[in-house]
Amino acid sequence: MSEYDDQHETEAERDEDAYALDPQAIARIMFAVDTNDRDRLLSEMEPLHAADIADLLEQLNAFDRRRLIELYSNEFDGEILSELDESIREDVLSILSPEVLAEAVRELDSDDVVDLVEDLEEDQQEAILEALEDSDRAAVQKSLTYPEYSAGRLMQREVVMAPEHWNVGEAIDFLRDQEELPDQFYHIVLVDPRLRPVGNVTLGKLMGSRREILLKSIAEETFHVIPVTQDEGDVAYAFNQYHLISAPVVDENDRLVGVITIDDAMVVLDEEHEEDIMRLAGVGEGGLNDNIAETTRQRFPWLAVNLVTAILASLVISMFEDTIAKFVSLAVLMPIVASMGGNAGTQSLTVAVRAIATKDLTGRNVWRVIRREVLVGLVNGTIFAVVMGIVGVLWFGGPELGYVIAAAMVINLVVAGFAGTVIPVVLERIGVDPALASGAFVTTVTDVVGFFAFLGLAGMWLL
Amino acid sequence: MSEYDDQHETEAERDEDAYALDPQAIARIMFAVDTNDRDRLLSEMEPLHAADIADLLEQLNAFDRRRLIELYSNEFDGEILSELDESIREDVLSILSPEVLAEAVRELDSDDVVDLVEDLEEDQQEAILEALEDSDRAAVQKSLTYPEYSAGRLMQREVVMAPEHWNVGEAIDFLRDQEELPDQFYHIVLVDPRLRPVGNVTLGKLMGSRREILLKSIAEETFHVIPVTQDEGDVAYAFNQYHLISAPVVDENDRLVGVITIDDAMVVLDEEHEEDIMRLAGVGEGGLNDNIAETTRQRFPWLAVNLVTAILASLVISMFEDTIAKFVSLAVLMPIVASMGGNAGTQSLTVAVRAIATKDLTGRNVWRVIRREVLVGLVNGTIFAVVMGIVGVLWFGGPELGYVIAAAMVINLVVAGFAGTVIPVVLERIGVDPALASGAFVTTVTDVVGFFAFLGLAGMWLL
Repeated sequence: MSEYDDQHETEAERDEDAYALDPQAIARIMFAVDTNDRDRLLSEMEPLHAADIADLLEQLNAFDRRRLIELYSNEFDGEILSELDESIREDVLSILSPEVLAEAVRELDSDDVVDLVEDLEEDQQEAILEALEDSDRAAVQKSLTYPEYSAGRLMQREVVMAPEHWNVGEAIDFLRDQEELPDQFYHIVLVDPRLRPVGNVTLGKLMGSRREILLKSIAEETFHVIPVTQDEGDVAYAFNQYHLISAPVVDENDRLVGVITIDDAMVVLDEEHEEDIMRLAGVGEGGLNDNIAETTRQRFPWLAVNLVTAILASLVISMFEDTIAKFVSLAVLMPIVASMGGNAGTQSLTVAVRAIATKDLTGRNVWRVIRREVLVGLVNGTIFAVVMGIVGVLWFGGPELGYVIAAAMVINLVVAGFAGTVIPVVLERIGVDPALASGAFVTTVTDVVGFFAFLGLAGMWLL
Repeated sequence: MSEYDDQHETEAERDEDAYALDPQAIARIMFAVDTNDRDRLLSEMEPLHAADIADLLEQLNAFDRRRLIELYSNEFDGEILSELDESIREDVLSILSPEVLAEAVRELDSDDVVDLVEDLEEDQQEAILEALEDSDRAAVQKSLTYPEYSAGRLMQREVVMAPEHWNVGEAIDFLRDQEELPDQFYHIVLVDPRLRPVGNVTLGKLMGSRREILLKSIAEETFHVIPVTQDEGDVAYAFNQYHLISAPVVDENDRLVGVITIDDAMVVLDEEHEEDIMRLAGVGEGGLNDNIAETTRQRFPWLAVNLVTAILASLVISMFEDTIAKFVSLAVLMPIVASMGGNAGTQSLTVAVRAIATKDLTGRNVWRVIRREVLVGLVNGTIFAVVMGIVGVLWFGGPELGYVIAAAMVINLVVAGFAGTVIPVVLERIGVDPALASGAFVTTVTDVVGFFAFLGLAGMWLL
């Protein structure tokens, strides 16, 4: 945003309550549950979208959730199951009666059923598969043969296609003759005689073109084909990068097997971001609805890694026990140097991790970025060195302590900029997720260097 | 992912090179630039999507970027400008000749031009507006009257609409009679006589229905209308929550003024996530392509806040200088307690910040979440207390130091769980972005409590 905008324009204000569940509506719903009034419950729930009902179920405690679901009974929609957070999905499935479950699942598209069953225990998975009609069950089982998190799991198998030599009139007549078309489709996929996709024609273009125009001539300029085994994260990246609306999926022989639409890619993009944020904070897979045992288990490993790195830093301090015994002020000031280094390192590594994820940090610009981070560390380090030098003098009298903390500050912020960029890049090169592991390494470096530089310089200059 | 999946299924592997720019292709492009060979440059650039060309320009240094753009000259596409990162967009605009710029901008849709000009300095903004045709310029200027980051800036003004009483046949005839239809459209918006949108009909449904069917009867079940002043983050949330493909935008009189499509919402969702990650790490608005001065300026405030909190923690330590002077081992061990608390607090606050952003953490479940976080802190704190108690005994002999560090660890991890949840919730209530400010507050709490508990207990038990 330029200065100009800052001064002359207004910004749209985020409305925190937009699309949030209305607390009064929830109160009315729970009143209906408390009074066991099914008619009232149905009329209160009627305006809610399945995604909102799923959010409501997530926010209730287990007792209220069970009562609501039991009263709601056969109104329970398959889409609510799709929208539910995994952590409480199994709980909800166990509450639904077999008949309600079967009915709910039968309404879903095959890709939504796949999404639903792939994370379930085997017995729940089988209960759902049995509820499906034969053809749907076969489609779901076929999808489950593709690797987890692959395009094959994400795609829908219903595709609208046309031979590449057709014209607009033939395509329109074909579409209007179909018994049933998929719920969501935006393109006709053009295929060659061996069923290999060669182009996409949007329905809008089709409607706006004369009947004798060849489909080939109005195909989209941007056309991407997705291999069925491609990771869903890469699929989401392609949709975001190339503004795709739908893309055909092909098997190892380049034959069309399905289509992925942007709404599915958007869900994946959202999940990938969530994963990145959680991994950067050392929270693993955790969400809001996991129980205490599960949450403790998820967070433990990251704290254990942090304990090891903290002990490493302590070992560095213990090398200087004699120095500290002579100047206790060192113990007072040393966490400042380590903390500033840790923060600066986290800044650098977050920018680097994010740039790696968006494929913007490459061999071509990595040295330029490292150089920038080091220089930024040098400039900020120098500013804070002057500030802390003055603080040191004012607080503890003599200038020597000021020199020590100033010099250590510059060293640690430069190292933070370097380590914060190099560590994620190296981790990515050796095949380790940089979002997952960078934090521990970078703070270890800044702790060790911070304590070593500060206490080491103090030992040299003060003793 | 269940245990079952872990054992029996494979996962799609992320291919880091998928959709990344091919280094050999870049080398060939730069060879063409070095040899000033325009034909070779054009043929090498031909297969690249505008988004890839923008990525390439971002990765080049300023010198190579200028040479490439000058040689590429009038092949430069408006879409490349749209895809460019803001930090180098102004630089690129200043390189383009006025004729090339005018040509490039004229190809763009009005919403893309708005996106392009809204962040520019006034003189560059005017240069681009002048290049537009009169009707386009009017459309862009109208959009610029809406607040920044609002639905009005995001929407396209070209809408395909139909009266609510039409049937399928009338709509199809109308569409086929149009001179020109928008590039991207997926729905026909049904409007009442006062131009208020009342429903959406997908083109797929239109193609698959008989001519005499009423449009009203095949309208989408999920239908959301977006106010023109709504924040774009809320718009992106609605698209993601309700799986919208396009949504009509209305003015204060509920009249249709434009339409937003999912690809624009996906870009916003991506930007919002980027912002959250950067804010959590205290990087502000920073990207990979800002220069050193700009990057230093962006990161400085966060480091300054951290310095203040670190000094606060040091003041706590200085209260116990006498204790430390007697037991230097305390100085060695104290950073461990603070560091573990800081990490646990960051885990809790990240989960809370994310849950607030997705509207999953509300008044209804906040106490349940706080209770969970505190109990998780208690359990993990107890485990690490035992570990550190043993380490303390082994490292420093006596059991007393072990008791002290164990007790301080439990206290600090419980406090971390509490503060990590309560602080973001309170910040959000008082209207401060929790992603922005939570980190500094939470680590201040865990540092102060960690040092105070550890040194205070040591003073009581060891002296």
